Amino acid sequence: MDDDKGNAARTARWEERMEVPLGIASGLFLAGYAVHVLARQPSGVVDVSLIVVFASWALFLVDYAVRWRLSGLGLSFVHKHLLDTVVVVLPLLRPVRIVKVYDRQLRRHGEPRLSLYGRVIVYSGLSTSLLGFTGALAVYQQERGAPGTTMKTFGDAVWWACATLTTVGYGDVTPVTPGGRTIAVGMMACGLALLGAVTGSFSSWMIEIFSRGEGQKPPEDTKPPGS
Amino acid sequence: MDDDKGNAARTARWEERMEVPLGIASGLFLAGYAVHVLARQPSGVVDVSLIVVFASWALFLVDYAVRWRLSGLGLSFVHKHLLDTVVVVLPLLRPVRIVKVYDRQLRRHGEPRLSLYGRVIVYSGLSTSLLGFTGALAVYQQERGAPGTTMKTFGDAVWWACATLTTVGYGDVTPVTPGGRTIAVGMMACGLALLGAVTGSFSSWMIEIFSRGEGQKPPEDTKPPGS
Amino acid sequence: MDDDKGNAARTARWEERMEVPLGIASGLFLAGYAVHVLARQPSGVVDVSLIVVFASWALFLVDYAVRWRLSGLGLSFVHKHLLDTVVVVLPLLRPVRIVKVYDRQLRRHGEPRLSLYGRVIVYSGLSTSLLGFTGALAVYQQERGAPGTTMKTFGDAVWWACATLTTVGYGDVTPVTPGGRTIAVGMMACGLALLGAVTGSFSSWMIEIFSRGEGQKPPEDTKPPGS
Amino acid sequence: MDDDKGNAARTARWEERMEVPLGIASGLFLAGYAVHVLARQPSGVVDVSLIVVFASWALFLVDYAVRWRLSGLGLSFVHKHLLDTVVVVLPLLRPVRIVKVYDRQLRRHGEPRLSLYGRVIVYSGLSTSLLGFTGALAVYQQERGAPGTTMKTFGDAVWWACATLTTVGYGDVTPVTPGGRTIAVGMMACGLALLGAVTGSFSSWMIEIFSRGEGQKPPEDTKPPGS
Repeated sequence: MDDDKGNAARTARWEERMEVPLGIASGLFLAGYAVHVLARQPSGVVDVSLIVVFASWALFLVDYAVRWRLSGLGLSFVHKHLLDTVVVVLPLLRPVRIVKVYDRQLRRHGEPRLSLYGRVIVYSGLSTSLLGFTGALAVYQQERGAPGTTMKTFGDAVWWACATLTTVGYGDVTPVTPGGRTIAVGMMACGLALLGAVTGSFSSWMIEIFSRGEGQKPPEDTKPPGS
Repeated sequence: MDDDKGNAARTARWEERMEVPLGIASGLFLAGYAVHVLARQPSGVVDVSLIVVFASWALFLVDYAVRWRLSGLGLSFVHKHLLDTVVVVLPLLRPVRIVKVYDRQLRRHGEPRLSLYGRVIVYSGLSTSLLGFTGALAVYQQERGAPGTTMKTFGDAVWWACATLTTVGYGDVTPVTPGGRTIAVGMMACGLALLGAVTGSFSSWMIEIFSRGEGQKPPEDTKPPGS
Repeated sequence: MDDDKGNAARTARWEERMEVPLGIASGLFLAGYAVHVLARQPSGVVDVSLIVVFASWALFLVDYAVRWRLSGLGLSFVHKHLLDTVVVVLPLLRPVRIVKVYDRQLRRHGEPRLSLYGRVIVYSGLSTSLLGFTGALAVYQQERGAPGTTMKTFGDAVWWACATLTTVGYGDVTPVTPGGRTIAVGMMACGLALLGAVTGSFSSWMIEIFSRGEGQKPPEDTKPPGS
Repeated sequence: MDDDKGNAARTARWEERMEVPLGIASGLFLAGYAVHVLARQPSGVVDVSLIVVFASWALFLVDYAVRWRLSGLGLSFVHKHLLDTVVVVLPLLRPVRIVKVYDRQLRRHGEPRLSLYGRVIVYSGLSTSLLGFTGALAVYQQERGAPGTTMKTFGDAVWWACATLTTVGYGDVTPVTPGGRTIAVGMMACGLALLGAVTGSFSSWMIEIFSRGEGQKPPEDTKPPGS
């Protein structure tokens, strides 16, 4: 019992200390990966970007290992912290962490606190954007140069990602490789969940606005969440 | 404190006085823009429409400046009134203001007040329609004459806008230019949120109808909101 | 006041007396319209179907006129009973009335009453099916033989209607004529609303099932609504 | 009354005893069907798979017959247990039963009980996956070798199923045969309902997380349901 408390305290301290480095590493990972995918010719830039990517990944692994150690748990740690495990294996999902850092920044600067709905919208909106950008990068890496592909430029990939995450799905640009399609299915699942949160919150917020002050205040004065 | 109250009162008076002119300017802006986009040959009509567009835009700028002045805030005004700032920069979103004027008209004419759900549905339905029409105009302006475009007539653009805002997304008509696609992504995001409000309200209203009077009144007698 | 009550009573009596004839007329209208659209060669069958269609329409007009008369209202009747007015002008929406007759039948036969969610699901499920079938007929009538159409058989039209009402929107079959597209936009709007009710109720029902008896009864014993 | 109780008790005992055999039979049915569809050349494997499929089906029929007998009901059993009847006629829907067995397994192993939302998400997520896999198999069986089909491999069928169940609907792969399209319409309907449950629960869960402990615990510590 006492040991558990000590472990929890040490874990909390570790997490606090690592927050900024991990946030920076997430950003560097994403930037490095983007450079690696988008740079056409092999050059020094690509080499550096690859080093950045692997260094960030190593940092994530170290963080995971330390927290496993501190938790005092055996193999059940993998099961209990399934999300963290997934993020270590699929580090492209990591940058979503940036959203949390942004959230904390807002609090520190004494920003007028967003309403509940506003926070959900900002949180899931940012996650969706990051997920879309990351997914577009990953799918583009698979599709580039594949025979019969309709995804010729990175712009096409971003356009495809937007049409997918909003479930519009025009089908003018679609992945054709097994790798690209697998990532696409993951994006559909995550994107739907996040988008469901955004639209659900927006409609709740709108109903709240209308049910509150009828005629007291013109609705326009109530700024939408996130503005 | 006292100064703040005075500012608020002066702002309220200004907003009241400007409501009708700004509403008319919004309508003129949309009409002028539509004429500018849809008129084929350069002619006197197009010149007049351009003048109307810029005059309305100037009025929006003046309104924004006056309210900034009256608010007594510095640069934080831009941040606090982010929606207004966006509307000044992207005046195509302005016509959504017409919805508010329509709402106020309904009240003045002693119309039997709509239920909460009814108002949300009317409000977001109108906004969606306006957004669709405006978006179709803006995308059509980008796409017209682009090589390889499938959007040949303005009818195609409206058809595309409807399929996009409802997230059906057939893909028989799609934008191909970067400009058109950027506007399209904005439409997807806004449209989804608005549509989420419509469907959410409709389903809440339907459940309310069914949970109320079981057998007292046939459901058909309860007219749907907005009818 | 007294006159109003008399009017309401007379209206109620009229509606009760007309329920069965109007229900039958709705069914005949739909059947006649289907025969008219689907029969290839002009023949006696088509002539009879056209007569049935116009006779049903005439009955709807008579019903509307009588209720207008009984209501004792002037032109405001058109505005107050907007839904009825729409149904008279667009009689294809009429068959949705069959759902109400079905609902009443269920009650009379002492059927174990459906739960609230079950009724919403059955009600909107039936409406969606009818709307889809009617919409497929109407769009097929517009598209048949149009140059460049992808809707070659009525089966294609039904397939397109299903993909549209569920917002999947493959785009392998799409209307190309202005008339067909206008009907399609109406279907998207109605279908979305109805489908929102179905999914909203289903998810509410599922959450209710899970939050109720945890372990008391296996969830499978609770039959889904509408079964 | 007493007889009813006896029937219910006997039915419960039968269901308990049959749970594991029926679960195994469901799995075997799906596996056998998959082998039957995916094996290219007729061979001994296909013969065995067909025997497995029909044996499982026979077991379902026996179970249905015994429960009908035990219920002491006449023809009304078919109506009252409509879902079971559907499953007997369309045994491909049977494997969804595996989800229930999985749920019971979790309970027996003293797993930390999932929250309400978590259970709904896991339950409908698993059902959706199974439905998608089964639907892809069934549609692929119809489409394989059809003239003009775009569904050339089983991978295409799975990709199509994912795009359909999430309502993205690219349309790069679509069924063209009447049989395939009929199954597809069923998948759209079921998938929408299940997905509605997933997104509805996820957004409810997200809102709950945010409305709870503001600042007490960083949101990241709260693992998402199902992790």
